[in-house]
Amino acid sequence: MTKTPLYDRVTLIGLGLIGSSLGHAMRRAGVAGEIIGADRDEAVCKKAVELGFVDRAETDAAKAVADADLVVLCTPVGTFDALAKEIAGALKPGATLSDVGSVKLSALKAMAAHAPEGVHLIPAHPVAGTENSGPEAGFAELFEGRWTILTPPDGADAAATEKLKSFWEALGSKVEVMEAEHHDLVLAITSHIPHLIAYNIVGTAADLETVTESEVIKYSAGGFRDFTRIAASNPDMWRDIFLANKDAVLEMLGRFSEDLSSLQRAIRWEDGDALHKLFTRTREIRRQVIEAGQDE
Amino acid sequence: MTKTPLYDRVTLIGLGLIGSSLGHAMRRAGVAGEIIGADRDEAVCKKAVELGFVDRAETDAAKAVADADLVVLCTPVGTFDALAKEIAGALKPGATLSDVGSVKLSALKAMAAHAPEGVHLIPAHPVAGTENSGPEAGFAELFEGRWTILTPPDGADAAATEKLKSFWEALGSKVEVMEAEHHDLVLAITSHIPHLIAYNIVGTAADLETVTESEVIKYSAGGFRDFTRIAASNPDMWRDIFLANKDAVLEMLGRFSEDLSSLQRAIRWEDGDALHKLFTRTREIRRQVIEAGQDE
Ligand SMILES: NC(=O)c1ccc[n+]([C@@H]2O[C@H](COP(=O)([O-])OP(=O)(O)OC[C@H]3O[C@@H](n4cnc5c(N)ncnc54)[C@H](OP(=O)(O)O)[C@@H]3O)[C@@H](O)[C@H]2O)c1
Ligand SMILES: NC(=O)c1ccc[n+]([C@@H]2O[C@H](COP(=O)([O-])OP(=O)(O)OC[C@H]3O[C@@H](n4cnc5c(N)ncnc54)[C@H](OP(=O)(O)O)[C@@H]3O)[C@@H](O)[C@H]2O)c1
Repeated sequence: MTKTPLYDRVTLIGLGLIGSSLGHAMRRAGVAGEIIGADRDEAVCKKAVELGFVDRAETDAAKAVADADLVVLCTPVGTFDALAKEIAGALKPGATLSDVGSVKLSALKAMAAHAPEGVHLIPAHPVAGTENSGPEAGFAELFEGRWTILTPPDGADAAATEKLKSFWEALGSKVEVMEAEHHDLVLAITSHIPHLIAYNIVGTAADLETVTESEVIKYSAGGFRDFTRIAASNPDMWRDIFLANKDAVLEMLGRFSEDLSSLQRAIRWEDGDALHKLFTRTREIRRQVIEAGQDE
Repeated sequence: MTKTPLYDRVTLIGLGLIGSSLGHAMRRAGVAGEIIGADRDEAVCKKAVELGFVDRAETDAAKAVADADLVVLCTPVGTFDALAKEIAGALKPGATLSDVGSVKLSALKAMAAHAPEGVHLIPAHPVAGTENSGPEAGFAELFEGRWTILTPPDGADAAATEKLKSFWEALGSKVEVMEAEHHDLVLAITSHIPHLIAYNIVGTAADLETVTESEVIKYSAGGFRDFTRIAASNPDMWRDIFLANKDAVLEMLGRFSEDLSSLQRAIRWEDGDALHKLFTRTREIRRQVIEAGQDE
C-alpha cells in the first residue's frame, strides 16, 4: 500500500468475527501502518497471523497495546471493564481507545472508569454482522454500505473523533455520531429485541409436546428457519448485550408485548380489518429498508 | 415432453406466487397434459398465458374446471368456501379437488361442504414460499427440496392420494401425509407465529416516539431487516391464515408469550446464566435446520 496510513499502529483486542473483519478491512484500505492483535487464546493468535489480518498477535493485551495509536476492543461488552483496567496503564498518551461493542453507554462507562487522562475515548459500533463467530468468520467487506455509530462523550476531542470517522469511512462504512444513550434505545429495537424474540420462539418451538422437534425442523421453511439463523448468534455476546442494555431492552420489550396482546385480541375477536391494516403498514417499512440499501 | 402426464388436465384457480410456480413446475416436470388457469383478474389471466405457465386462462372458475382431472385452489384460504361452492357443480366425477392453502382444517371443511360425491378431496400445503406475490413472482424451483403436506380426510381414496403424492414428488417436493388438525398446529409454530411476531415488531418500531422511522431503517442491519422481509408478505393471505387457524395460533402465542415473560424476568434480574442456557440450546436447532437442508 502506498497510501499514508491514518494510524501508524492499531491494536485489536479480540480476534473473532468483528476483530478479524476489521483486520481484513484495514489491510484492504491501507489505513493502518501496522496491525497488532490480542486474544486470550494462543491458538486464535496463531490463526490470526496465519490468515494475515494482523502482523503479530499475543495473549497479553497490555503488551499488545504498547505504542498503539488506536486500540479497539472487539470482545463481548461484559469484558470491557476488566480489559480496560488491564490495558489502562500501557496506553500511549494521545492514543484513541475505541471499541465495537453493541451497547454503548455501558461501554463508555467501563472505558471511562480506567482510561488515563490524555487518552481519547471514542466508543463505536459498526451495525453489521453475521451469526458466525471466530477468527475465520471475518471478511473485509462486512462494513461496506453499513452504518457505524460513534458515541463520543461530552467534551471529546473533535480531531480524534474526525479521524476515527475517516477510519470507518475508509473501511466502506457510513458514519453517524450520536449520544450513547440514544444509540442504546435505537439498537434495542433494531437489533436486541429482534434477537430476543428469535431466541424465544426457537426455544418455545423446541419445548412443545404436541409438535416434535423433527417436525419443527422439517417444516421450518415457512418462516421459522429465518429465526433459527438469528438465534444461532454467539451466546456470550448476546448475554452480555441484554445485561448491558437492560433498561432500553425492557422498555422496548414492554411495547412489543403490549402490541402483541392487541394482535392476539384481534385474532381472538376475528378482527380481520385490524390485522390487514397492520400487515399493509409493515410492507411500507420493508420498501424503505430496500430503498435504503440495507438488505442486499 | 415425451413423459406420460399424471393428469390430462389440471386447473389452477388463482395465478399468484404459488399458482404460477405450480404452473412452471408442472411444465418442467411434464406431469400435466394441459394446464388451465383461472383468475378473477382478466389482466392476470393474460399475463399467465404470456408467461407460458398455463395453456389458457379465464375469469370464470366454473368454466375453467370443466373436464379437469385435478383442480388446485391457489387463492387465500378465506376464499375457499365461496370458490368451492362456485365450481362444485362443474367438477368432473372422479376428479381430485386440492388446494395449496396454508391452513388445512378450514380448507378441508370449506371444500367438503360443497364438493359432490365422487370427487376426491385431498388438501395439500407446499411448505415453501417467498414474500413476493402475483403471477410474475413464480418459478419452477420453488418446491424443490421442500416438504408438501397432504391432509386427506378419513376414508379418502388411497389411489387418488398416491397419485397426488407422485405429482408433488415430480415437482421436486418431499411429501408427508398427516391429519389436517396436526398440520395446523405444526404450521402455527413454524410459520404463523414467526410471521405474527415479525409483523408485530415492525409495527412496534414504526410507532416509537423516541426513535425515528428513518433511524429504524438506517440501522436495520442489526437484525430488524430480516423481520421486515417476513413482514412484507401478502396482507390478504396472512389475514386469512390467522382467522382460519385461530385456535392453534392462540395456543402457540400463549406459549410464546409465557416464555418471553420468563426471558424478560431473567433480564430484569440479570440472570445471565438463564439467558446463556437458552441461547446455547437454540444454536443446536439451527444446526439441525442446516443439516436437514432447509436453509439454502
Ligand atoms: N457479531 C455481530 O453481529 C456484531 C456486530 C456488531 C458488533 N458486535 C460486537 O463485537 C464484539 C465482538 O463480537 P464478535 O461477533 O466478533 O464475537 P466473536 O466472533 O465471538 O469474538 C469474540 C472475541 O472476544 C473474545 N472473548 C470472549 N470472551 C472473552 C473474555 N471473557 N475475555 C477476553 N476475551 C474474550 C474471544 O476470544 P476467544 O478467541 O478466546 O474466543 C474472541 O476473540 C462484541 O462486543 C459484539 O457486541 C458484534
Ligand atoms: N406465499 C407463500 O409463501 C405461500 C406458501 C404456501 C402456501 N401459500 C398459500 O397459497 C395460496 C396463494 O398464495 P400466494 O402466495 O400465491 O398469493 P398471491 O401471489 O397473492 O396470489 C393470490 C391469488 O389469489 C387470488 N385472490 C386473492 N383474493 C381473492 C378473492 N377474494 N377471490 C378470488 N381470488 C382471489 C389473486 O387474484 P388476483 O390475481 O386478482 O390478485 C391471486 O391469483 C394461499 O392460500 C396461501 O395460504 C402461500
